[in-house]
Amino acid sequence: MKLLILNGPNLNLLGEREPEIYGTDTLIDINYSLEDTYPEIEFTFLQSNSEGELINWIHQADSEQNGIIFNPAAYTHTSVALRDAISSVKIPCVEVHLSNLFKRTEPFRQISLTAGVCKGVVSGFGKFSYHLAVEYFLREVEE
Amino acid sequence: MKLLILNGPNLNLLGEREPEIYGTDTLIDINYSLEDTYPEIEFTFLQSNSEGELINWIHQADSEQNGIIFNPAAYTHTSVALRDAISSVKIPCVEVHLSNLFKRTEPFRQISLTAGVCKGVVSGFGKFSYHLAVEYFLREVEE
Amino acid sequence: MKLLILNGPNLNLLGEREPEIYGTDTLIDINYSLEDTYPEIEFTFLQSNSEGELINWIHQADSEQNGIIFNPAAYTHTSVALRDAISSVKIPCVEVHLSNLFKRTEPFRQISLTAGVCKGVVSGFGKFSYHLAVEYFLREVEE
Amino acid sequence: MKLLILNGPNLNLLGEREPEIYGTDTLIDINYSLEDTYPEIEFTFLQSNSEGELINWIHQADSEQNGIIFNPAAYTHTSVALRDAISSVKIPCVEVHLSNLFKRTEPFRQISLTAGVCKGVVSGFGKFSYHLAVEYFLREVEE
Amino acid sequence: MKLLILNGPNLNLLGEREPEIYGTDTLIDINYSLEDTYPEIEFTFLQSNSEGELINWIHQADSEQNGIIFNPAAYTHTSVALRDAISSVKIPCVEVHLSNLFKRTEPFRQISLTAGVCKGVVSGFGKFSYHLAVEYFLREVEE
Amino acid sequence: MKLLILNGPNLNLLGEREPEIYGTDTLIDINYSLEDTYPEIEFTFLQSNSEGELINWIHQADSEQNGIIFNPAAYTHTSVALRDAISSVKIPCVEVHLSNLFKRTEPFRQISLTAGVCKGVVSGFGKFSYHLAVEYFLREVEE
Amino acid sequence: MKLLILNGPNLNLLGEREPEIYGTDTLIDINYSLEDTYPEIEFTFLQSNSEGELINWIHQADSEQNGIIFNPAAYTHTSVALRDAISSVKIPCVEVHLSNLFKRTEPFRQISLTAGVCKGVVSGFGKFSYHLAVEYFLREVEE
Amino acid sequence: MKLLILNGPNLNLLGEREPEIYGTDTLIDINYSLEDTYPEIEFTFLQSNSEGELINWIHQADSEQNGIIFNPAAYTHTSVALRDAISSVKIPCVEVHLSNLFKRTEPFRQISLTAGVCKGVVSGFGKFSYHLAVEYFLREVEE
Amino acid sequence: MKLLILNGPNLNLLGEREPEIYGTDTLIDINYSLEDTYPEIEFTFLQSNSEGELINWIHQADSEQNGIIFNPAAYTHTSVALRDAISSVKIPCVEVHLSNLFKRTEPFRQISLTAGVCKGVVSGFGKFSYHLAVEYFLREVEE
Amino acid sequence: MKLLILNGPNLNLLGEREPEIYGTDTLIDINYSLEDTYPEIEFTFLQSNSEGELINWIHQADSEQNGIIFNPAAYTHTSVALRDAISSVKIPCVEVHLSNLFKRTEPFRQISLTAGVCKGVVSGFGKFSYHLAVEYFLREVEE
Amino acid sequence: MKLLILNGPNLNLLGEREPEIYGTDTLIDINYSLEDTYPEIEFTFLQSNSEGELINWIHQADSEQNGIIFNPAAYTHTSVALRDAISSVKIPCVEVHLSNLFKRTEPFRQISLTAGVCKGVVSGFGKFSYHLAVEYFLREVEE
Amino acid sequence: MKLLILNGPNLNLLGEREPEIYGTDTLIDINYSLEDTYPEIEFTFLQSNSEGELINWIHQADSEQNGIIFNPAAYTHTSVALRDAISSVKIPCVEVHLSNLFKRTEPFRQISLTAGVCKGVVSGFGKFSYHLAVEYFLREVEE
Repeated sequence: MKLLILNGPNLNLLGEREPEIYGTDTLIDINYSLEDTYPEIEFTFLQSNSEGELINWIHQADSEQNGIIFNPAAYTHTSVALRDAISSVKIPCVEVHLSNLFKRTEPFRQISLTAGVCKGVVSGFGKFSYHLAVEYFLREVEE
Repeated sequence: MKLLILNGPNLNLLGEREPEIYGTDTLIDINYSLEDTYPEIEFTFLQSNSEGELINWIHQADSEQNGIIFNPAAYTHTSVALRDAISSVKIPCVEVHLSNLFKRTEPFRQISLTAGVCKGVVSGFGKFSYHLAVEYFLREVEE
Repeated sequence: MKLLILNGPNLNLLGEREPEIYGTDTLIDINYSLEDTYPEIEFTFLQSNSEGELINWIHQADSEQNGIIFNPAAYTHTSVALRDAISSVKIPCVEVHLSNLFKRTEPFRQISLTAGVCKGVVSGFGKFSYHLAVEYFLREVEE
Repeated sequence: MKLLILNGPNLNLLGEREPEIYGTDTLIDINYSLEDTYPEIEFTFLQSNSEGELINWIHQADSEQNGIIFNPAAYTHTSVALRDAISSVKIPCVEVHLSNLFKRTEPFRQISLTAGVCKGVVSGFGKFSYHLAVEYFLREVEE
Repeated sequence: MKLLILNGPNLNLLGEREPEIYGTDTLIDINYSLEDTYPEIEFTFLQSNSEGELINWIHQADSEQNGIIFNPAAYTHTSVALRDAISSVKIPCVEVHLSNLFKRTEPFRQISLTAGVCKGVVSGFGKFSYHLAVEYFLREVEE
Repeated sequence: MKLLILNGPNLNLLGEREPEIYGTDTLIDINYSLEDTYPEIEFTFLQSNSEGELINWIHQADSEQNGIIFNPAAYTHTSVALRDAISSVKIPCVEVHLSNLFKRTEPFRQISLTAGVCKGVVSGFGKFSYHLAVEYFLREVEE
Repeated sequence: MKLLILNGPNLNLLGEREPEIYGTDTLIDINYSLEDTYPEIEFTFLQSNSEGELINWIHQADSEQNGIIFNPAAYTHTSVALRDAISSVKIPCVEVHLSNLFKRTEPFRQISLTAGVCKGVVSGFGKFSYHLAVEYFLREVEE
Repeated sequence: MKLLILNGPNLNLLGEREPEIYGTDTLIDINYSLEDTYPEIEFTFLQSNSEGELINWIHQADSEQNGIIFNPAAYTHTSVALRDAISSVKIPCVEVHLSNLFKRTEPFRQISLTAGVCKGVVSGFGKFSYHLAVEYFLREVEE
Repeated sequence: MKLLILNGPNLNLLGEREPEIYGTDTLIDINYSLEDTYPEIEFTFLQSNSEGELINWIHQADSEQNGIIFNPAAYTHTSVALRDAISSVKIPCVEVHLSNLFKRTEPFRQISLTAGVCKGVVSGFGKFSYHLAVEYFLREVEE
Repeated sequence: MKLLILNGPNLNLLGEREPEIYGTDTLIDINYSLEDTYPEIEFTFLQSNSEGELINWIHQADSEQNGIIFNPAAYTHTSVALRDAISSVKIPCVEVHLSNLFKRTEPFRQISLTAGVCKGVVSGFGKFSYHLAVEYFLREVEE
Repeated sequence: MKLLILNGPNLNLLGEREPEIYGTDTLIDINYSLEDTYPEIEFTFLQSNSEGELINWIHQADSEQNGIIFNPAAYTHTSVALRDAISSVKIPCVEVHLSNLFKRTEPFRQISLTAGVCKGVVSGFGKFSYHLAVEYFLREVEE
Repeated sequence: MKLLILNGPNLNLLGEREPEIYGTDTLIDINYSLEDTYPEIEFTFLQSNSEGELINWIHQADSEQNGIIFNPAAYTHTSVALRDAISSVKIPCVEVHLSNLFKRTEPFRQISLTAGVCKGVVSGFGKFSYHLAVEYFLREVEE
């Protein structure tokens, strides 16, 4: 199974940025923990701060991957274009968030534009949010 | 590890009710699949259509369980009392939903009163939503 | 034909409570007038102040009755769980109200969560709201 | 008893227009079914696409009829003038709708300007909505 | 000076309709009181329940009158077409209301679509609202 | 007849301030034009920029005047205290505005807190708004 | 091909009314330009200020025309009845506007009730809005 | 004097649950402090997590008590049924809250459905909120 | 103990103004009843219609009083400046209202700007609202 | 005449993505059909998923093209930056959409940020939306 | 150059009041720091808690000062009268705030009524907000 | 001191684009005026139309600059990602705008997503907005 782990804006700073909200794991820590735990899966890890680049990668994944695990970060709340990108590819996409979306209080974080076209959402478990999404793909394949 | 699998209103009809949204698995099917997959965990399975009874069980679980996996169903959208119950106990609670909350379009389903006081949310993976929540507890214990 | 006449919270006080809005007929008066007018129908009369109990009775009616005539009273405006209960049973449900919902002015009475999953609504005719709902079932059967 | 059956805009196309919502009965079918079922009542049947003409007929009915059964169709949602017309006559008016208003999802169909000044509302029973309204007038007279 | 006194829907019933809000003067009483008080002015009195007819009369007044005193009644709250009609003629229009608009509490009466394109508004003085509007035209001419 | 002409904040600058909206007449010009036109009326002219002082004057007028003609200016939109002051005195108050309130487009000018407790409103006729209000008091006395 | 060019309220004054928004072409100029440019099409030109008459003409066009080009003018924003009329006929309707709807700033012009049931919308090109709509019908026929 | 001290959901955990908001007094501490301070009053102390049971107890109190001191807790914000229960009994009800309702910031805690049908509200004084409510009943009796 | 009893706009007219809402007690009656009931407390009684003067008195009380019992009347709904004044002094402030705030229906009375920075609120008990606030200070001192 | 045909995010997948909404024509099919139909026009065809690149191209077009035909796709609803880009160039821009914007029901598709600064909008005619926009430029040039 | 430094309600308590938001500098400290830094400017320092007095001073400054640096404090959010005062004088006004307005979270602090009629706004730099405003006046003069 | 002057979308066209709002200074003029006025500061000048590139530059500035002066232009209103970028770096950021944000009237310009995480905001002083921001950094360093 081939899975794209796709990360959105500012996640390159993970571990440094606001650790009281997002924890001290860096993106590389998360990637290693996925490769360690799931050696049978072929992961591709991509991160970009550019909405357009993320769209391009989602389009491209359609013919190269079995699924996408996507943390759209701030674009969760503002990008109709990413929503349209997800709904224009055929492979399933699972949305993940490190923090619990429902605990954030700024009004602009209450709107999720991308979640409604994903298979499902895993939110609030730190790096384990990515693990749980992988667990879904493993079970789906088994059925 | 002891986990309470708590299910809210109308989930006793699961498998019969609106299968195009909720699938054909019954609550008993889900419970069996959890016991089969995780024989090392001691599960307690409870379901009620009464808000008051669900509150009582959450209170009681605080001294008897290591965590709660809770599908509040319709009470997700209307119960401040269940929110207060979750935040008044010390054990962690993970909220799960069979369907993807963000795909539902009725306005009254856009409000989630309980998710903000849970550890995290798993939504949209059918019976596997419960499995993924268990996976979280297993990882949390390991750390 | 077997019909369940189901009444929600505070309707046990009918006739005493705010007679300028709800009239002076008690629930028993209404029940008698139904039995008198429609001796050919087998009625079951139930009333509860508990949301959970009303859900249980709706579930149970599915296998025992031909239809439900339901006055959800205050739960009309707050219960997604009762909405889900009605949409999870196969027998038709007609919603009735003693007063005309559209004349009530409190903002929280402007929201109806249950009506959208019922066959239809009869509102504003006092005890005759129940009679008119029965008339519908009689006609439906005839067709 | 003399009753005016008053129908608003586009109902002249009933039976042809969107039958999946409004059914295949034409307005004439409905009128015949009323005359057949209630031979003792003297019905007047009027339909207009013009808001002004409907207002004129409501004014005129005040001195000629015992009641009005009114399906305002699209004007339900936009006409304060019809609301004022109904509240300016002394005979009672019952509002009827073929479909269940609460099931329609366009936001502009959520507003009812006329229902609040009618005696009551019957909504969702197809042609039987008119019958149920007649049943109300029969019972009211009896008392 | 030639003035058109234009009255909108249901005002033909004035004096009979809801006298606790609109008073007991009929439209004819008001017209007589205007002719009595201002014999030097040539009044034209028109009333219609039809939005289209009111628009036609406003168009026509442009070449025949010096001004319009308009009580749009219920169309105040719903008619963009009348607003456009008023702004498409060159003679000034003064909006009048028998009751004080700001005392009415239904939400749909809070919106005024026509007032913003009139010269000014006189509201709340019963039949004198028309008199005060005439006083304006007299002063305007004098200047 | 004794009338209080009461003017609210910034009206002391009338004639200088934004003449394209409020005209070039000063408050003194308006007062003179009232005294000239209505020599039989005993006018008291007061203006203040202080909400508290305006309240005091309204209280005091109750025992000394036959009516109040009040231009609350900016306090129209923000003062519940002035609203309460007007409704706590027994003499009638007529609200006047130089410009047509309905033509102003800032959202905070759409709210009128004082108009609902006045007898009526005259808006949009420049200095003649005050004259028309006086005309009302003359007619009221005559009846 | 037979096309109905249907124009709503106040468009009879086109060329005179607010030329800075709507231009100086009269409705007759537009009609001539259409006949000149498309001699092969049989046009019917109708204009009314009455909502009811517009509905009647839409109904009638269903059996006589191949399509409707409709400028609902002010009724765009207020008429559910015209929306229902368009969706109750089988021939396609294209909505046109002389000015660009999205440039108008009054809040009541932000709501479009008719556009959602038309084939498409052409807005902002003056008289050419009608031409572009004809171009669509020509292409549709060709396919 | 006989008073019912009625407590809503999760108040059985008082003293343990979120002491930074609700303090460290348990419900029993509060009850003792009432009995100590007011030995002349006959108190009945009831607490339930079930909306239906609370409604039943309010109904029952009508014939057995002189007044109700009610802390509806989370149901304050969601229960129209409790509101209807309070307005359907004849004895006065005083609403009390341990914390100051106006300091809570979650939007769903801004709505109070029960307070509007109570005699008055005492909010923010910890256990003394109950004492102050008793003080009201003592004074009321004296008058 | 020294307490400032501070009253806001229009309360100088208490007993005369709208007695059906506010009762027939004057402010002096209330003050006497406080001095009679609590001779051990040194009261200062102040009332003003001016927001600025109320702010000045709150500032001054900080060094002279042990607490403030404040009825902000209409300023409750509009004054951020009074809110800031209360939160800038160190002595506790208790907000009181003669009528039950939650029973008032005008939308502008639904907003409370001052209550959130007070210790607590007592609302709806007429003159006894002041008494109950005093009872709080007595108990607070005792502890 | 030189025209830039500019296409926004995800339109590179046209023909594959959700054909039930957007049809089966690819972007290349549309481009060919334009070149075929209008051989006299020099077209430049550009598509990007990046908001920044689209802005750059609009800036650049100002000195190289006679007009822009722009389908902003998802950025229609979210990009103030594109709106500012369009209003900062001197050549006219026509906005086109394949589907009828007014038929889409997600709330975030109801907002159009770019249309208000374009010459006009053509929406709902599939590939012909682009053709109709070209027809506008041809006519504009002719005048 | 003569500049009025005008401070609104509660700023007389600066340095004592909520120092975690507003810092420990008193108003006198700020005034001294301005006089020290800009000895070439003739400052007038005024502070009032009264809206009316602030309006009077703004009017008066028009003939005596070259500009106003105004911290309206709480009146920023509630005073249309101060807005009108600023727009009725000819000298420029710069609005300053000690804290960053955009960081405050109470909803009533999100509305700014005065900023829109000022030259510009400086917010968030503590006492330096006043300095930066002076820097603007120095540069403006230089040009 | 090293400062990054960062400019967002469309600011490369400054001086050409809508000069009545943004003035005739180009970005280069502004940069020169900064270098001229503050020769002791080492400025870096960057401008991009791409949200992603702006995020990258903010990240990079964290280790290379002492502060950021940022004009986010249109992204002020739409970019949560830029907000997160600013709050993820440790150096202070001051937001500047050429025009006064509070004077702009389009609703989408009323929302500021970036200002709340900046040190402060300077808005409305044309090129001097940048100067005033520099003045802040100079003072901050001095303290």
